[in-house]
Amino acid sequence: MTFPDRLAACASAVEMRLDAALAGWPDLPVVHAMRYAARGGKRLRGFLVMEGAALFGVTDAQSVTAAAAIEALHAYSLVHDDLPCMDDDDLRRGQPTVHVKWDDATAVLAGDALQTLAFELLSDPACHPDAGVRIGLVQTLAHAAGGRGMVMGQAQDIAAETAPVPLTLDQITALQAGKTGALIRWSAEAGARLGGADPAPLGAYAAALGLAFQIADDILDATGDEAKAGKRVGKDAAAGKATFVSLLGLDGARARAAELVDTAQAALAPYGARADHLRAAARFVVSRDT
Amino acid sequence: MTFPDRLAACASAVEMRLDAALAGWPDLPVVHAMRYAARGGKRLRGFLVMEGAALFGVTDAQSVTAAAAIEALHAYSLVHDDLPCMDDDDLRRGQPTVHVKWDDATAVLAGDALQTLAFELLSDPACHPDAGVRIGLVQTLAHAAGGRGMVMGQAQDIAAETAPVPLTLDQITALQAGKTGALIRWSAEAGARLGGADPAPLGAYAAALGLAFQIADDILDATGDEAKAGKRVGKDAAAGKATFVSLLGLDGARARAAELVDTAQAALAPYGARADHLRAAARFVVSRDT
Repeated sequence: MTFPDRLAACASAVEMRLDAALAGWPDLPVVHAMRYAARGGKRLRGFLVMEGAALFGVTDAQSVTAAAAIEALHAYSLVHDDLPCMDDDDLRRGQPTVHVKWDDATAVLAGDALQTLAFELLSDPACHPDAGVRIGLVQTLAHAAGGRGMVMGQAQDIAAETAPVPLTLDQITALQAGKTGALIRWSAEAGARLGGADPAPLGAYAAALGLAFQIADDILDATGDEAKAGKRVGKDAAAGKATFVSLLGLDGARARAAELVDTAQAALAPYGARADHLRAAARFVVSRDT
Repeated sequence: MTFPDRLAACASAVEMRLDAALAGWPDLPVVHAMRYAARGGKRLRGFLVMEGAALFGVTDAQSVTAAAAIEALHAYSLVHDDLPCMDDDDLRRGQPTVHVKWDDATAVLAGDALQTLAFELLSDPACHPDAGVRIGLVQTLAHAAGGRGMVMGQAQDIAAETAPVPLTLDQITALQAGKTGALIRWSAEAGARLGGADPAPLGAYAAALGLAFQIADDILDATGDEAKAGKRVGKDAAAGKATFVSLLGLDGARARAAELVDTAQAALAPYGARADHLRAAARFVVSRDT
């Protein structure tokens, strides 16, 4: 199976798992909005869970619940991030954002309930038969997503918009380690946890991949095509925000991303050819155009 | 120890536990807002956890972590509920709400991170030494707080504001079972879970207490003193919303609340005098003036 096929297969499995999790829920706008927000996207985080777990012989049927959990959590973060009081984005994955299609209150509540759904999925015995593994996934995700992880990064990002001086490279690296890096890292590590393995090598892989992903995002924001990206581009430059491109230049940012891809590949050495899809994923995040 | 002393002792223990959980967090407005939102209040839910657990010999030192978790989750729901796009309240517990003191973005993020904190606390080994107990608390809280529980109730409440006809008594009872009842019930049941006991009797107690609590809230909204309540009153009547008072009349609502207190008391029969503080709590929720 090629990497794009594997990525698509994981995305499809995650989509079905989320649909199943939300089947039979009350017929309310907030639930429709949850389903809408939970659809689409590359499902990179879900892929990292499933492909990481597969390294240790865990079946997709077993790992898909944790993969669905991280995608529910990611979806919550996007819905809230798009709100008028946050990034105020009208378009996401080429579709109207939740607060545009419904309203702000529904977007707040749908995001809230998607976060809760992530923890409901991780705590479900379907996620893993061992309660110790499940509670470890809950605890590490809560740490990665909360006020010392993703929310910290988002708060730093908001503070940066009104800061008197642009952020330094170290500051922006720390910000991104929280805002996007923490969940990406959790995803790959979760694969190892599901397989009862040491999460450190996959954690090192994903830390490099996550930063490369963010640098690629900044490059796309600076050079990208809005129609392809399915979201507004050029907004960071327009806002005068420091980005990896503004700090390193376009060539410098591309070189740094390429170095990080090498670092990510090196971390996979213990796993030989079984990690080839994960290697391809590291190349993919810096070459994508959406 | 009298009931008011016990309630205050639990509140103080919860406050210290939440302060400890947030100690050393990054110096960001969102973290300051989390601490602000997590302070004060009667801590009824935390009391129910701790007093329920005490029935089965669980120490306060053990049960306070789960008590802090439910209070963090409750605080998140208040911060988001007060947002301009939701209930648009400026005052909570006699203080400016989070979005008034900071801004909407900080309130969204602080609420988000308080929800995450609840799951971080429940998954912490300090909550209970047995991973199976901890994951049970996570799973039941996720169910109670999410799109089939609290968020469903909030969404139904919002929908009721623009509904062509006011809600019926059955509909408003179902709404409140989600909006406020689910967390109150979880709290008492969590006490039994921490003690390795059957949660059913405390669940029946708390279901009755939770509904009595909401009827008392409606009575306070109709008759209360804003200065004492520490929040805006009379807003349901002003909005033309159906409440237990509009549906049952003031005397009918008081009679129904009194019946529910009796039901709650009866459910405590298996526990004898050890449940006296819980009995007092049921009387308290219908007699409070804040």
